[in-house]
Amino acid sequence: MPATAAWGATASDSALEPLTIERRDLRDEDVAIDIAYCGVCHSDLHVARNDWGRSTYPFVPGHEITGTVRAVGKGVTRFKPGDRVAIGTVVDSCRKCDSCDDGEENYCREGVTGTYNAKDRIDGSPTYGGYSASIVVAEPYVLRLPDSLDMAAAAPLLCAGITTYSPLRNWKVGPGSRVGVIGLGGLGHMGVKFAKALGAEVTMITTSPSKGADATRLGADHVLLSTDRAAMKAATRSFDFLLDTIPVQHDVTPYLMLLDRKGTLCLVGMIDMMAPFHSGLLLGGQKAVAGSGVGGIAQTQEMLDFCAEHGVLPEVEMIRMGEINQAFERMEKADVKYRFVIDMASL
Amino acid sequence: MPATAAWGATASDSALEPLTIERRDLRDEDVAIDIAYCGVCHSDLHVARNDWGRSTYPFVPGHEITGTVRAVGKGVTRFKPGDRVAIGTVVDSCRKCDSCDDGEENYCREGVTGTYNAKDRIDGSPTYGGYSASIVVAEPYVLRLPDSLDMAAAAPLLCAGITTYSPLRNWKVGPGSRVGVIGLGGLGHMGVKFAKALGAEVTMITTSPSKGADATRLGADHVLLSTDRAAMKAATRSFDFLLDTIPVQHDVTPYLMLLDRKGTLCLVGMIDMMAPFHSGLLLGGQKAVAGSGVGGIAQTQEMLDFCAEHGVLPEVEMIRMGEINQAFERMEKADVKYRFVIDMASL
Repeated sequence: MPATAAWGATASDSALEPLTIERRDLRDEDVAIDIAYCGVCHSDLHVARNDWGRSTYPFVPGHEITGTVRAVGKGVTRFKPGDRVAIGTVVDSCRKCDSCDDGEENYCREGVTGTYNAKDRIDGSPTYGGYSASIVVAEPYVLRLPDSLDMAAAAPLLCAGITTYSPLRNWKVGPGSRVGVIGLGGLGHMGVKFAKALGAEVTMITTSPSKGADATRLGADHVLLSTDRAAMKAATRSFDFLLDTIPVQHDVTPYLMLLDRKGTLCLVGMIDMMAPFHSGLLLGGQKAVAGSGVGGIAQTQEMLDFCAEHGVLPEVEMIRMGEINQAFERMEKADVKYRFVIDMASL
Repeated sequence: MPATAAWGATASDSALEPLTIERRDLRDEDVAIDIAYCGVCHSDLHVARNDWGRSTYPFVPGHEITGTVRAVGKGVTRFKPGDRVAIGTVVDSCRKCDSCDDGEENYCREGVTGTYNAKDRIDGSPTYGGYSASIVVAEPYVLRLPDSLDMAAAAPLLCAGITTYSPLRNWKVGPGSRVGVIGLGGLGHMGVKFAKALGAEVTMITTSPSKGADATRLGADHVLLSTDRAAMKAATRSFDFLLDTIPVQHDVTPYLMLLDRKGTLCLVGMIDMMAPFHSGLLLGGQKAVAGSGVGGIAQTQEMLDFCAEHGVLPEVEMIRMGEINQAFERMEKADVKYRFVIDMASL
């Protein structure tokens, strides 16, 4: 079992620190990957602190991984050493249910094996994330990173990217769609870029004029300040799709007022109880409140290829591994534009 | 102004009683209809009692109307005296917004003119519903009642029918769809019939074994007792579409657990604040909570034609006009299978 350098947490109240973990010897279908970069997702912080109550320690975060193939098991056919690859939030699933058959492994009926804080389906060993020098993943869960995508900037595509791309595709956003992106952070800024690249008319909906200006730079056609009552009223029934990236509990009522008939508000950031809202806001126009998590492997590959074709990349702030605890603190204050990426050469 | 016999309420706390109302002289586009039957909708009761705070008196309920054309204005081309016709919840709209252009007058940007408790767009006179001998409606809002549909039983199609047909069509329910209908009343029993006629696999979800048996008689393939914890657990993630007809405030959590990936729960009965539910139930599978009201004129006509083609008709209990106050009381106790219809010959 090769010892591997990593950073992780040994308890819910401990800072991240250097650890040595074990990566398994290659099975026939395995791909060993030298990790070049790893994005920093808010979930990394939540699981490190056991906010969702299911963390096991030591815990190594990181599920926005890019790197290079170092070695492959003898059954691997699609990858060879030196290939540019990526790993997202899922490293295994049952591979036999209808969800898996449909390429939506993320909705596997038996539950997915997460990239971190899960158990390997074969030997029960814990899965460790990408804050580490290398990772071993079964071939069906390894993504090809197109040559034209910068390997550092591409890392956040593996979670923030697919989390915004998937709902925009599912709800068929395209030319003619009037899309509002609510909140400008790691998810929101990708929502703006994807919606624009898909041909939609894009409005950034934010409380902050400075974020509004930033959104315009990122490609938004319009800015709507949600604190401006007159502007919000004027925007009543003017959106087909709202991508709600607000990460904390909030009332969707003012946003539902913005939906036109048959419109959908899709939550991608908030994992919490819904604040009460009136059902009449949905009945009056066949509207919906929806939610969406990450996409399946096939859609994640489609997203990476789409990014290469359309020149879509996250805006990232590079950090060294030793800066991760400060980065967590800054992320909690939304003080990042718009995603931290760890340079694993600094490990 | 022809005086017309009707029944209505003169105040929010008064029982319905005989009234004389005025119906307008025919404008060029108007159709005068002798009302044969009128269904009794829960909204009739809510507005009579001013539950929604916007009632004006005298108030004449009734928006599930069938009858025969008595006379037409000189500009009317599609109808002639003697034709079988129907009127639903909408008698006018702006006729120039995109919603009206798309045949979704029910979502008119300027707001519809309701069949009752609204004001005529031309002369500002109050609109009175179908608990009356006749009604005058502009031609674009008059529906053709297919010859094969029983005129008495068809009346509830104009509100209960279209309210369930519209969401089933909008969410593309058809062969292969796994549909659950929650609650068996005026709406729910039509939901079962329509979902079945559209080719779906239909489950009645109810607290009542006797209603379950009834649902089977109406065409449901399965019955799921929502009080049976083991059965509910076994049904986790087994529905594509849930038509939620429960008319009072309730927690959608146990039902959201039943939705499979990309499934939608659509509220058609509850006009109230949503009880809090966890957003994770939506995020874990791109699921949605939606709502739906009545459909547009074109879709209502489509629904009537569908009913004629597939032999779909509501189950009704006929009453005389003088029995309406007892019918209201029984409706409040859900003591009706499944819709009261007033025989206007008894007026």
